[in-house]
Amino acid sequence: MKDPTYALGLDFGTNSVRALVVDVRNGDEVGTAIFPYPTGDAGIILDAKDANLARQDPADWLLGIERAVGDALAAAKKKSRAFKPDRIVGIGVDTTGSTPLPVDRAGKPLALYKEFRRNPNAHAWLWKDHTAHAEAAEITALAAAKHPEYLAKCGGTYSSEWFWSKILHCLRTDAKVASAAFSWVECADYIPAVLTGTTDPLTMKRSRCAAGHKAMFNDRWGGLPAKPFLAELDARLGALRDRLYKKTFTSDAVAGTLTKEWARKLGLRPGIPVAVGAFDAHLGAVGSGVGPGRFVKIVGTSTCDVCVWPASKKLPDIPGLCGIVDGSVLPGYLGLEAGQSAVGDIFNWFVNEIQPGGPRKGSHEALTRGAAALEPGESGLLVLDWHNGNRTVLVDQRLTGLVVGLTLRTRPEEIYRALVEATAFGALTIIRRFGEYGVPIREVVNCGGIAEKNPLVMQIYADVTGLEMKVARSAQTCALGAAMAGAVAARKKGGGHDTFAEAQAAMTGVRKKTYKPDKRRHAVYLELYGLYRALHDAFGTEDWTGNLHHVMKDLLALKDRQRGGTRCSKN
Amino acid sequence: MKDPTYALGLDFGTNSVRALVVDVRNGDEVGTAIFPYPTGDAGIILDAKDANLARQDPADWLLGIERAVGDALAAAKKKSRAFKPDRIVGIGVDTTGSTPLPVDRAGKPLALYKEFRRNPNAHAWLWKDHTAHAEAAEITALAAAKHPEYLAKCGGTYSSEWFWSKILHCLRTDAKVASAAFSWVECADYIPAVLTGTTDPLTMKRSRCAAGHKAMFNDRWGGLPAKPFLAELDARLGALRDRLYKKTFTSDAVAGTLTKEWARKLGLRPGIPVAVGAFDAHLGAVGSGVGPGRFVKIVGTSTCDVCVWPASKKLPDIPGLCGIVDGSVLPGYLGLEAGQSAVGDIFNWFVNEIQPGGPRKGSHEALTRGAAALEPGESGLLVLDWHNGNRTVLVDQRLTGLVVGLTLRTRPEEIYRALVEATAFGALTIIRRFGEYGVPIREVVNCGGIAEKNPLVMQIYADVTGLEMKVARSAQTCALGAAMAGAVAARKKGGGHDTFAEAQAAMTGVRKKTYKPDKRRHAVYLELYGLYRALHDAFGTEDWTGNLHHVMKDLLALKDRQRGGTRCSKN
Repeated sequence: MKDPTYALGLDFGTNSVRALVVDVRNGDEVGTAIFPYPTGDAGIILDAKDANLARQDPADWLLGIERAVGDALAAAKKKSRAFKPDRIVGIGVDTTGSTPLPVDRAGKPLALYKEFRRNPNAHAWLWKDHTAHAEAAEITALAAAKHPEYLAKCGGTYSSEWFWSKILHCLRTDAKVASAAFSWVECADYIPAVLTGTTDPLTMKRSRCAAGHKAMFNDRWGGLPAKPFLAELDARLGALRDRLYKKTFTSDAVAGTLTKEWARKLGLRPGIPVAVGAFDAHLGAVGSGVGPGRFVKIVGTSTCDVCVWPASKKLPDIPGLCGIVDGSVLPGYLGLEAGQSAVGDIFNWFVNEIQPGGPRKGSHEALTRGAAALEPGESGLLVLDWHNGNRTVLVDQRLTGLVVGLTLRTRPEEIYRALVEATAFGALTIIRRFGEYGVPIREVVNCGGIAEKNPLVMQIYADVTGLEMKVARSAQTCALGAAMAGAVAARKKGGGHDTFAEAQAAMTGVRKKTYKPDKRRHAVYLELYGLYRALHDAFGTEDWTGNLHHVMKDLLALKDRQRGGTRCSKN
Repeated sequence: MKDPTYALGLDFGTNSVRALVVDVRNGDEVGTAIFPYPTGDAGIILDAKDANLARQDPADWLLGIERAVGDALAAAKKKSRAFKPDRIVGIGVDTTGSTPLPVDRAGKPLALYKEFRRNPNAHAWLWKDHTAHAEAAEITALAAAKHPEYLAKCGGTYSSEWFWSKILHCLRTDAKVASAAFSWVECADYIPAVLTGTTDPLTMKRSRCAAGHKAMFNDRWGGLPAKPFLAELDARLGALRDRLYKKTFTSDAVAGTLTKEWARKLGLRPGIPVAVGAFDAHLGAVGSGVGPGRFVKIVGTSTCDVCVWPASKKLPDIPGLCGIVDGSVLPGYLGLEAGQSAVGDIFNWFVNEIQPGGPRKGSHEALTRGAAALEPGESGLLVLDWHNGNRTVLVDQRLTGLVVGLTLRTRPEEIYRALVEATAFGALTIIRRFGEYGVPIREVVNCGGIAEKNPLVMQIYADVTGLEMKVARSAQTCALGAAMAGAVAARKKGGGHDTFAEAQAAMTGVRKKTYKPDKRRHAVYLELYGLYRALHDAFGTEDWTGNLHHVMKDLLALKDRQRGGTRCSKN
């Protein structure tokens, strides 16, 4: 047996960075460590006067690389005799996004200069910063009027969370930062560049994933949005276009090789390849084994749903998808991204904000136990899972949650189950949308905290969708996907893999425990889904007309049936 | 000043009977007492095998009269030097209903015979008994086909709670009781009869209120429903018709005079008049001062809404009203009854079943405090108050509660306020329905526990309806109304009043504290009511078609506006 080789994955999250050392041959995770960002509130710079503001300090990232990698290597040494740091053959990086930051001509973040240390606008604009909501509306309106093709690939609405909105807002509100910023880079661009000493903004290898999903980059229209379009928003934005990029790269590409300085700091071999970065969800999908027909759901506070489609095959624009970007997930495939605005957040809201069930009955565990004892339809409840708007397929933040079927006997655990079911109906709506546009979903692999920890949620997802729910083997699929990018960057001859397909075959897998749909329950859920869909279309679309008089009655009839029909209703 | 005279009111409730001694001159309540029924579960005979069953033991009533009157007289003696039992000049009775019971040829309840003591079917079938739901559906169907006029006066649906449904169910399920029952009487018929020794079922003075609202009695079609109609339901029901009644009486009529035996038991003068009985809500409305244009809301776990209309003036059938009966409230007036299936019950459900807010924040008091701090529309929530169906104007038990506008930040006190507002919208819907059919509501007098105890609810009702909310002076308007019937039965020459109008002028009033609508809030509530009405019609009626896409958006826009527009939404 050949000497083992390892790949290193760096996963830059919202509150911390994780380092993961993975065995290239089999995906064994031999060492991992987390470094929580020291700045601000759990790593996030906030503004008491503006709840929309959320920034991150790039100095935290740099410190975090050293600390997390050091700890991960130490853990690996402890766990595996075979492991040695010089057997690490490649590094990959995934990050949050869109998380852009202003840099100078050399690619150094303005935030690292003393004069800008205290200015949040000079730091990284974290994905969940919403200060640029007005600019986002402006960009959407202009694109709708002049370049609807820009919007077609990103779900029809340009978000306040994205690249151009944030830069435009900065240009308009902070002249100092605006004029000091030679260029702007995504966190996913910056980390590989800094590790490989390739930070020149004009030649830095930019992430296809970040550019395509957040900056409306598409080769079909010559890369970034047209200069006149950007200039119409703001002359300075038009001018900035020339200081950004014309080419982007998928994560099998090598951003560069590890500098001596970083090699020394980290205790790694200098010269090992570092892959071009990508977003966490996309590399998380890779680490979960995404492939044609194989749909990955990252189920946490919200969901990110990812699948791929051969770039060589025709695909129409799919209305309501968050993004369709060539190579954002796997090279040679269109990366298709969808998502639900809130999943775990809804369950957390019920437990934490409503605090149902009194002192002892209102925990997730207790409510899950109570909910598990119920049959589909037995509660007579139906929920629309729009407590944080609807990302896919309606792409509308101005939607809200709805509960119907309440009676004087409705219990908290019934509502809890109805909330879970609603997120499952939301998931089914997304899966069906893919199918309607010719992208069949044959297999679902779940990852993320809820997928691992809540079997009831997984079983309900199986029963609602009629698809077997599998769970990714790794508990840290994003970092694993990043490590796989590092392995692919090394290529076979460098101790890695030549392609992502090979890396996936070797390094990913699903857990033994899967969740198979129950036919009888699935049939009941299809009835309920019909009612969900009626409400979904009535409240969520402009063209629906019809009558909803049947909804409460159908729910009560189903309730009577599912309770065995022994209880009688008043009349 | 003339020597004071007093009237005695007996109020037979679900769990207890109340006696009230009232000064005929001014309505002063000089003595009161409650006797909780000893039988069953708080006075209700239940069946572990059938949640629909609810019966009452007539022996509890008889014992209760002695005890409650004895205690009330003692209290009156203690409170007032002027009071003497022989200054009581008349007795009135109000009861729950429809609460029919089988009696023998002499009018003695079968339940009082040893052989029937243990048979619940021989006892009084309490208003909330729903064992006869199938029979109710059958009666409704037959009436709709052959005598739609029967249904037009009782809201379009004959209820399982009512007279014929219960008797028909008994005929079909208990041959022994069915054949032993010479006749059936309402509690409201029975009590005055027993006090006056006039229990012969064929001559007993039956309550117009009970007959008209529950037994489809109407002089327009010759009293009770036609014999062929009843016989088609069951031959024995047709035969029973001849052993019931042809005439009915309003509560200014004298049922008879107090027997020597009862006078001795109660320590009252024999021979004083006892008024014909009526239902609690109707005499409660009298005790609250109901009159033309003066609408009385009895606000408790549910509401009963009562107003009157001169019998001499034309009135079309008003769709969705629970009942329209000549003389059921005041002689010479049509009594119009409406109601909401759940009001306080909804608030209680949220506090007791959902148990929101954790250990200390989930009480009615705490939630009311939190809700009081909110402006209309500020929560973005809207509720349909159909947790127990909808009695008026939809007359549909197969409807359920709905909440829309939920977000990840929705708080329990926001839901609590939205629940209160929803019941106010339900009240406005009823008030508007009266107006649409030519019965203007100019004044609202509230009574019942919630009206007295929750100023926030009253203020919201004022702000939603745009009408000043007054609260009846008496805390026991039903018993007061009963006492007023006793005073009217005595007539002026007997120390009472000649008419209810005179009795009301002398004996009723409203409290100083009233709730005036705030114009600005009323304007916001009218906007919200437009949305409530859209949902009401969409889910509650068959003929509505339209689009609800605007609902969530309008709620969010109103929310933004009511919060001052400073908070920004994601986009």
